[in-house]
Amino acid sequence: MATPIDPTSAAFLLAENRNMPMHVGGLQLFEKPEDAGRNYIRTMFERMRDVDAVAPLFLKHPHRSLRTGGQLVWRPDEQFDIEHHVRHSALPKPGRVRELLELCGRLHSTRLAWERPLWEAHVIEGLRDGRVGLYTKTHHALVDGVSAMRLLASTLTTDETRRGMPAPWAARPRPRTAAPSDSNLADLPMSALRTALGVTAEAAGMPGALVRTLRQGLRNETSAVSLYAPRTMFNQNITGSRRFAAQDWPIERIRAIGKATGTTINDVVLAMCAGAIRTYLAELDALPDSPLVAMVPIGLNAKQSQIASADGGNAVGAVMVALATDQADPARRLGAIHTSMRDGKEALSSMTQMQILAMSAIGQAPAILTPLLRMQGIVRPPYNLIISNVPGPRTTQYWNGARMVGMYPLSIPINGMALNITCTSYEGQLGFGLTGCRRTVPHLQRLLGHLDAEIAALEVAAGL
Amino acid sequence: MATPIDPTSAAFLLAENRNMPMHVGGLQLFEKPEDAGRNYIRTMFERMRDVDAVAPLFLKHPHRSLRTGGQLVWRPDEQFDIEHHVRHSALPKPGRVRELLELCGRLHSTRLAWERPLWEAHVIEGLRDGRVGLYTKTHHALVDGVSAMRLLASTLTTDETRRGMPAPWAARPRPRTAAPSDSNLADLPMSALRTALGVTAEAAGMPGALVRTLRQGLRNETSAVSLYAPRTMFNQNITGSRRFAAQDWPIERIRAIGKATGTTINDVVLAMCAGAIRTYLAELDALPDSPLVAMVPIGLNAKQSQIASADGGNAVGAVMVALATDQADPARRLGAIHTSMRDGKEALSSMTQMQILAMSAIGQAPAILTPLLRMQGIVRPPYNLIISNVPGPRTTQYWNGARMVGMYPLSIPINGMALNITCTSYEGQLGFGLTGCRRTVPHLQRLLGHLDAEIAALEVAAGL
Repeated sequence: MATPIDPTSAAFLLAENRNMPMHVGGLQLFEKPEDAGRNYIRTMFERMRDVDAVAPLFLKHPHRSLRTGGQLVWRPDEQFDIEHHVRHSALPKPGRVRELLELCGRLHSTRLAWERPLWEAHVIEGLRDGRVGLYTKTHHALVDGVSAMRLLASTLTTDETRRGMPAPWAARPRPRTAAPSDSNLADLPMSALRTALGVTAEAAGMPGALVRTLRQGLRNETSAVSLYAPRTMFNQNITGSRRFAAQDWPIERIRAIGKATGTTINDVVLAMCAGAIRTYLAELDALPDSPLVAMVPIGLNAKQSQIASADGGNAVGAVMVALATDQADPARRLGAIHTSMRDGKEALSSMTQMQILAMSAIGQAPAILTPLLRMQGIVRPPYNLIISNVPGPRTTQYWNGARMVGMYPLSIPINGMALNITCTSYEGQLGFGLTGCRRTVPHLQRLLGHLDAEIAALEVAAGL
Repeated sequence: MATPIDPTSAAFLLAENRNMPMHVGGLQLFEKPEDAGRNYIRTMFERMRDVDAVAPLFLKHPHRSLRTGGQLVWRPDEQFDIEHHVRHSALPKPGRVRELLELCGRLHSTRLAWERPLWEAHVIEGLRDGRVGLYTKTHHALVDGVSAMRLLASTLTTDETRRGMPAPWAARPRPRTAAPSDSNLADLPMSALRTALGVTAEAAGMPGALVRTLRQGLRNETSAVSLYAPRTMFNQNITGSRRFAAQDWPIERIRAIGKATGTTINDVVLAMCAGAIRTYLAELDALPDSPLVAMVPIGLNAKQSQIASADGGNAVGAVMVALATDQADPARRLGAIHTSMRDGKEALSSMTQMQILAMSAIGQAPAILTPLLRMQGIVRPPYNLIISNVPGPRTTQYWNGARMVGMYPLSIPINGMALNITCTSYEGQLGFGLTGCRRTVPHLQRLLGHLDAEIAALEVAAGL
């Protein structure tokens, strides 16, 4: 029984090629419960594998044939084999976080085959501190990055004693009171993209007026802000290999810097990234004279945007922020970022509803919109990388008694945008997930050290 | 500096798709030396990774562009990154052979990307008996399966005390006295295919006379033997997922059965496979009434074939053998196989040189010749699977003091030929490597149990 694939999902499927797999990933770290036996991780894997029923989202695969008139359709996988999707992996010794990130990068490099439902999950053992990793990979045609992280979080509980909990891909009854944050995301794919969907679906069909709007939105022609993004080593064609780096910093440290300097947490996060990138590029003798520009998705409340999505979620806009990477002084850099962010938000608030949608769409779906813009004469988007900050659960979460101690998103580098930074908050920590093309962005893990140096430098600059 | 790709290699590159990766694999098992320290496996991995210079074969990747006039060429990888090719992997607990085979099947499922040199090697730790695995994967455009196994073996030594030995991909000086068995296979890719190469290269260009010869050869029209291969579950289109199963049996047991029944080792191996496949298909209620036919490559000495290859190696012919899977009795099955093999060899000896070449070519390169034959009106090849037996080293081999205790080939299932059995002898053992499409050939590992039951049944039948 084939069902049509909506245009946005189809666009993600069609934009994919060997060098640009279109899946989002998530890495979760768990601590075993105190009473964990010797076979705890194998049992955890088996519980994830042996689900009673799999949710429809995880059973369908894309198909295109003469019989479907060349159209892409979803088809249930008649020979669904859960063992293909849920896997048990291990780290070589010494089992440091380094080996874990290496494995995640490798797993994130492999494209999902259309002949199967478009997801994979790996229960990873062998961390020397005894923690368990769960790496999941889901095609962007099923869920966007934010929804994927929410889906993972939705199977967790704050109740340490609860057992018999389902895997994220298990079919679950809809909750009776469907509050937005509780809604069954497995049945609501693409929810965060729904707003953008309208635009991109139409845009794919008729580029005219909408793409003009997109161009205006991207060029910030409605405001005084007009940013120039220099070409950097991040803005090249990429290969299919990925490298992943991740680390946590206490939100309290970031908040303290913000408080002392009159800036926001987001500003400080951007300043950390800006400083780290500056050092990284300078070491490679590849720092451009003009400052890099980041595309930063931000949440807009319904009133601001007037385009709240049907299911009550807030719309997402995007702000272009100059990262002041030409500034050697951390304090000045933070100040410049604060100003640029403020200007960008003001520009956003002066945009029309359609322009905000355009910014939102380009932020959510750069891989499918960038080629479209290129056809319209915009050679490259006016930003160098995407830095986003996705709020995660604040309270401690458990899965069948295993305490989650960290979660990190893996995103999608694309041609011209080889590095992506996504942060997620959890339990008082801010987890940075850096996903890059292994080839275009060498020694990606060095950025972690630079981020650490940068937060320290900002603390000094803030007089802490 | 681009160099042209020869037509056979190009054919393997072009025949490849998501469902039919065209790489051969090898699994070697090593025992650590007695004085091995805690970091032995990591050091082994690092030694494999940190080679001084990589052989040219392992540095080039295929490329096609407008500038090359759409022709496929080899290009050196300007950004060669050995870390992408040599990897350190681990098994989840309990680290049985089962977990090792599972991992090898998974690694064998992933296609090699053209943007990099077409090979990968994984040093695998975590076997509970302390052994170390080495899984290697090389594109058929670089080496065929036999050459790949020889290449792996060529870096080993019988000298337990020797150290400082190179990795298989390291550039090595040519040996002064280039005996055929010692020749530097890294510099002689496709050597075993060279004979077939002449045919397939021409055949790809002008199907006429040569393909007519191929057809005659395949239909055995020159002899009284005319085999009918029933359609079985193995003869369907396949997917890209692989399952690998491997096990050893003592050659002495096989030889004893042959002696007692007046058959050859090869006959007994085929009878083991035939009985195992019979049981396997019967369990799945998929055993056809007529017997299955196996394509069995056999070595021909130069005099027999008159087509010894330039570098002194013997030519390879292929015999179609009826596997007598309609026979319930193991002794009768072995007898029937013996007769069929004898008839096939006679048919081969009565063939013209060109017909032998044709048989050889189809055996070496079914993936590229099968579509060609289909165009010529041969709907399917007259055999159900390929069973080959590649002689390996007889004496104990070492790599930097680590004793090799087993080697198993992983081959290439193709559309219409979902299962492949390749055996290799080593140190008095015969290793069976079964490579199948995970989806088309369910529960592949059951065949190992059936093989074991079959050798026992043959011993009983032989009165041993």
